[in-house]
Formats: sequence, structure tokens, C-alpha cells
Amino acid sequence: MRIPSFHDVREAHERIRAFVHRTPVFTSSSVNQLLGGDFYFKCENFQKVGAFKFRGATHAVLLLPDEVAQRGVATHSSGNHAAALALAARNRGIRAYVVMPETSPGVKVKAVRGYGADITFCKPTLADRESTLQNILEQTGAVAIHPYDNFDVIAGQGTAAKELIEDCPKLDRMLCPVGGGGLLAGTALSVKALSPATRLIACEPAGADDAFRSFYGGKIFPSMNPRTIADGLLTSLGERNFWIIREKVDAVVTVSEASIVEAMRLIWERMKIIVEPSSAVPLAAVIEGKIDVAGKKTGILLSGGNVDLEKLPFSVHFPGKSE
Amino acid sequence: MRIPSFHDVREAHERIRAFVHRTPVFTSSSVNQLLGGDFYFKCENFQKVGAFKFRGATHAVLLLPDEVAQRGVATHSSGNHAAALALAARNRGIRAYVVMPETSPGVKVKAVRGYGADITFCKPTLADRESTLQNILEQTGAVAIHPYDNFDVIAGQGTAAKELIEDCPKLDRMLCPVGGGGLLAGTALSVKALSPATRLIACEPAGADDAFRSFYGGKIFPSMNPRTIADGLLTSLGERNFWIIREKVDAVVTVSEASIVEAMRLIWERMKIIVEPSSAVPLAAVIEGKIDVAGKKTGILLSGGNVDLEKLPFSVHFPGKSE
Repeated sequence: MRIPSFHDVREAHERIRAFVHRTPVFTSSSVNQLLGGDFYFKCENFQKVGAFKFRGATHAVLLLPDEVAQRGVATHSSGNHAAALALAARNRGIRAYVVMPETSPGVKVKAVRGYGADITFCKPTLADRESTLQNILEQTGAVAIHPYDNFDVIAGQGTAAKELIEDCPKLDRMLCPVGGGGLLAGTALSVKALSPATRLIACEPAGADDAFRSFYGGKIFPSMNPRTIADGLLTSLGERNFWIIREKVDAVVTVSEASIVEAMRLIWERMKIIVEPSSAVPLAAVIEGKIDVAGKKTGILLSGGNVDLEKLPFSVHFPGKSE
Repeated sequence: MRIPSFHDVREAHERIRAFVHRTPVFTSSSVNQLLGGDFYFKCENFQKVGAFKFRGATHAVLLLPDEVAQRGVATHSSGNHAAALALAARNRGIRAYVVMPETSPGVKVKAVRGYGADITFCKPTLADRESTLQNILEQTGAVAIHPYDNFDVIAGQGTAAKELIEDCPKLDRMLCPVGGGGLLAGTALSVKALSPATRLIACEPAGADDAFRSFYGGKIFPSMNPRTIADGLLTSLGERNFWIIREKVDAVVTVSEASIVEAMRLIWERMKIIVEPSSAVPLAAVIEGKIDVAGKKTGILLSGGNVDLEKLPFSVHFPGKSE
């Protein structure tokens, strides 16, 4: 198993620079005042396709040899990786085959189709997703790009934290959400190489706490029936990801659903930016008092901004609450 | 009646610079592609208190002579001007008295109180707002700061367009929402002084079209029972405002409620930023095909980002639709 290092993140950054946004770092005096610290938010919600995933997907697609690339790329995903891979493929002028569960929100299907991908629908089970993808790989000869357990994807995701540290050196804390561990592993490479004194803390919904259990248990314990509003964090840690995370991450903390919604509302109301629930998980940990932020500089990776505006958790009519 | 000129906007900018954010200008390749033009969005939703109103209020408060200022400032408002005046007063260390209708949303009352203002509730009629304010002025000796028909406020609001033109010269079009006309009049001063070739178009909800009727009718026709989701644009044009607008604005166009919601959704979904309905009115005019944007550079003033997250127009449960 090949494991990327910070050297690979640095090279990834050079390769993808022309294709990705260098997203801004936002601060908010009212958030600082409310929560009693200095916070620096890396706005990957403003990244192309609305999420950091475009960094890793772009990097993986760019590195394919021509003879492989011409057969196309493929993945199964109902989320940001699908859109990211679709746009990365279009930018290289190759096909993208995306397997999506037939239950995927219309807005996500529309986004993936808008980037020109070939969509195949499947039943919403992991088994059917994988077998459908396998069929497509056999029929087309396309190469599968895993959303997070992939050397080049991890190196690409690490560029977000690299930029944040370049823009805001001397962070005392870096907070990162964790699902499959692509962003967290890449972030770990950048943080421990560029700013080793920064404490890196992974933040995870208690309802999908496989990273917490795996980190402290010393081996991968997959998610069992994860339930959380943070739909980007339902997946289980990948192998490469876990290898890097257990080596370089300082702590993993879990948060409640109520705190995630509270943090998301705080970011929307005070910062006037749209982030998806997964992005709010680190600030939820601050709200729960699980991170020592007083008098400290804390970097927070806002991973994405793709939400279904018809199903927001703020309204009293929110289906998750009332139905 | 004293009317400000661009010279006053320039002086206002020097005075308020240390207190206000120089807000960023956002662009979006997907919005450009969808609507077929080059758009430059001035993000006053990121301004302090979440709206451009803080510029004018800060300017007006800073210019008060000490002996006047020490008695405090006052206004009646259920919206952004109240919060703006409250924070501007706090920054100068003086009192702010705000008359708010007892029907004001809790979130707005909380914001105004959070900035330390003295709130007096009144019945939700213009007559009761004005008589309550009058009582307070008599009791306290405070000076009333009008939200838009005020020399110093207009000069302050003009600084947003000044910054946009400094950051993006050679705009072919500038689009600005119009309610009372504070932002529009200030914008007109800046546009016609700094970039006279730019066509300045005011955009207004058809359900509150007093500026449209006044501009083309040659005199002020006040709003009669205005109805629009753009709650910042319910007021009627002020006198100073109208004087500047009829002189310097090139056209006024009106838009439907459906277009406002569509434009607001487009900004939220594609740009990942939160804007209030009033801010979406100019883009609604583009969506309706009322502005010639093809191959042109169009500046758009996003006036603010204060919305009640529990009453958004996107959900099928939106009270305005279902009740």
C-alpha cells in the first residue's frame, strides 16, 4: 500500500493550481466574540463544484496516463465526489461514468449531469452500487477513482490545509471533519509538515463515529448504520487514510446532531455563507466545549456548501423533526 | 434641501474606512455561464450588521458634533438600519434609541439589542412609529437619523459602489435595488462621477414599484400597500434620493416575486452566499431578460444578508405559499 507524504501534497498543488480556486479564508468578529477564540475558516464551500472534493478528483484525473484516461473514469457516489470527478473529467476532455443510487436528490443528479457525466442509477445499497460500478468498468475499460482511499486523491485534498497554513501561519489548532478520511489525511500531511506545533483535531458526528472508535481502538471499525445530518460523513475510514490519521492526528472528538445544526446556523447567520452540515461539525465541537480555543488561533476547514434548500434543518417544518 | 455630491462620498469614505469592511467582489463562472454575461457582485451581505446600511449610519453618527452626539441617536426601523445605527452608536460610545414595531421578528430585535440599543416597541403602523419616535426625541434630546433621506447617509451608502468601481473598472452596467433610495442615490453619485459610461439601472419589485412610477412620472408617487418578499424595499423614495435619482439614474425596471425567489435561489445555490430577497432583485431583472448583459460587464450590489432562516421561500412548507 503506497502512502502519500507532504512531498506529494506539494506536487499536487503545483499540478492542480490552474484548475482549482484558491479559496478565501474568512474571519468573523462576532463568531470570535461568541465563542471566545480566533477562528480562521477555509472556505472550500466556494471551491468549484462547491466542495474540497474537486481538489483530489482533479489531481487523480490529471495524473492518469493518456492511454488510461482516454477510456474514462468512474465512481459510485451520491455526493460531492461524483460532481467533482465529472468536472475534472470534462476539464481533461474524457468521459466520467457515475453510478448514483436512484434515491439521490434531484439537485445532485442535475449537478452531475450538468458537468456532462454519464449517469447509471442503481438500488441504494452498497452491494448494488459496487456491482453496477463493476459492470461499467468491465464494459467501458474506465478506471475507478475512489473518493478517498486513493493516493492521489489524498495528496490533492491536502492542498486546502496547505493554503490555509500559508495564509494563516502559527495556528494553534486545526479542526477538520472526518468521514472517509480523505480531507483529514491530506490535512494531516500538510499540518505536520508545515506547522508541527499545530494540534490537529478530527471532528465527527457521534452518530457516525467510526473514526473515533478506530482511532482509539487501534484498528478500523467500520460504520454500522450511521445516522447523521452530516451526509458527507457517513462513510467509513479508508485504509490509507487510517494509516496516516493514526500517525499524525492528535485527537478525535464527536459531536451531537443538535450541535451540528446549531453550528451550521451560526455560520449561516453570522458569516452569511452557505455550508453543508458536514462543514459545521468542527464548530459544533467548539460549541460543545470539546476544544480549548480560548486565546488561541484555530483553523477550521469548511469542507463544502452543497445543501438542498428545500430540506433545511432550521425550519420547524424540517421533515427530520416533524415526521 | 442640501444634496450630496460625489465629493461628499469621497469624504465619507475617508471617514468611515476604519469602521466598515471593504467587502469582497465575488464572481461565479456558473452564474456567468447560465445568464450569459460577466457579473461582479459587491458583497455587502458581508458588511458589518449584514448590510450596506452600516456605511451610512456610521457616517451620519461620526459627523455629529460632540454636544449633539452625547444626547444619543434615534430611529424607527424594524430592519437593517436599526441594527446599523445601534452598532454605529456603540462604536462612538453614545446611546441609540430604536422604535420597533411589536411585530418585528425576534431575530431582528435580538440583533438590535445585541448592539446595545434601547428598544421601544410600538404598534405596527407608520403613525404609531412616528409618534413613538417623536416622544423619545422629546424626552431624551436624541437626534433622529433617517434611514435614507439624509445627506450624510446617502454619502455613506455611495461608498459601496465607489469600492466596486475601484475594484472593477469599466463596468458596462451597474444594477442596484431601490427601496427608499439611499443605496441607489449614493451609487448614482459614485457611478456618474467615476465611470460615466456605465449605465445605472435601478431594480424594484413590481409589488412595490413607487420608484418606477416616480422616475417615469416625474414626481414622487409614494408606495400604496406595497407587497413583496423583498422586505428591505417596502419604503417609498425620499426627497433627496429622488432628486439625485431622476438626475443620474438611466432606467428603472420592475420584477416579479417569482423572479426574486429564483434569483435568490441561484445566488444561494451557485455562489454559496446568503443574501436577503432585496439583494436578489437586480439579478431577477437579468433573469427576466430586462437587462442587456450579453458580452457586457455588469456590477451588482448585493445589499444585505439578513434573513430569517425559519422562513425561507425555498421550502414547500414556506408559510407564504401554504398558509
